Amino acid sequence: MIAQTPTPPYYVVIFTSVKNEDDKGYSEMADFMDKLASQQDGFLGIETARNDLGITVSYWRDADAIKKWKAHTDHQMAQKKGKTDWYKQYKVRIAKVERDYDFGL
Amino acid sequence: MIAQTPTPPYYVVIFTSVKNEDDKGYSEMADFMDKLASQQDGFLGIETARNDLGITVSYWRDADAIKKWKAHTDHQMAQKKGKTDWYKQYKVRIAKVERDYDFGL
Repeated sequence: MIAQTPTPPYYVVIFTSVKNEDDKGYSEMADFMDKLASQQDGFLGIETARNDLGITVSYWRDADAIKKWKAHTDHQMAQKKGKTDWYKQYKVRIAKVERDYDFGL
Repeated sequence: MIAQTPTPPYYVVIFTSVKNEDDKGYSEMADFMDKLASQQDGFLGIETARNDLGITVSYWRDADAIKKWKAHTDHQMAQKKGKTDWYKQYKVRIAKVERDYDFGL
């Protein structure tokens, strides 16, 4: 649920998306990508929620780990299919987490 | 839907939460806080999605704008009520957006 992340600083990728109505094959690919991401060096955690808008937030040790994950062969293929088949629009933001705090964790 | 944000750098608050089952009054307060946030100096945009996990991402001009919003009287009251009435757990992460890119926007 809420990702357990180390003391900052660390990095985050905020992926916000709107899908096409026909999203055949999407959920299988999304599950596969979540699993694959979690196996990458520097992966710290992932959180996701979707209504009309989908938000996936993944946490990484550093910017280099994010760069390597973006360039991963299977992920590249998924990114291409995302553009042709599934997403109407999306935005990716890469940010450095400077501080955090929590309640009830 | 997807927030229109300026060229980086800018700041982001990632608020991830799990609510209690009884969340009476929550959605009215959430709507009010969204509206109030959007009227603050330095506010750039907000994106939100909720399933079991809720993710709200708000964008800000700088860290000082975030600090002022956190200290806003009405927001302080909502934060207190959030802890006593609505949230089982939450995590807040403050990060500096270094770069972004998009598709279909």
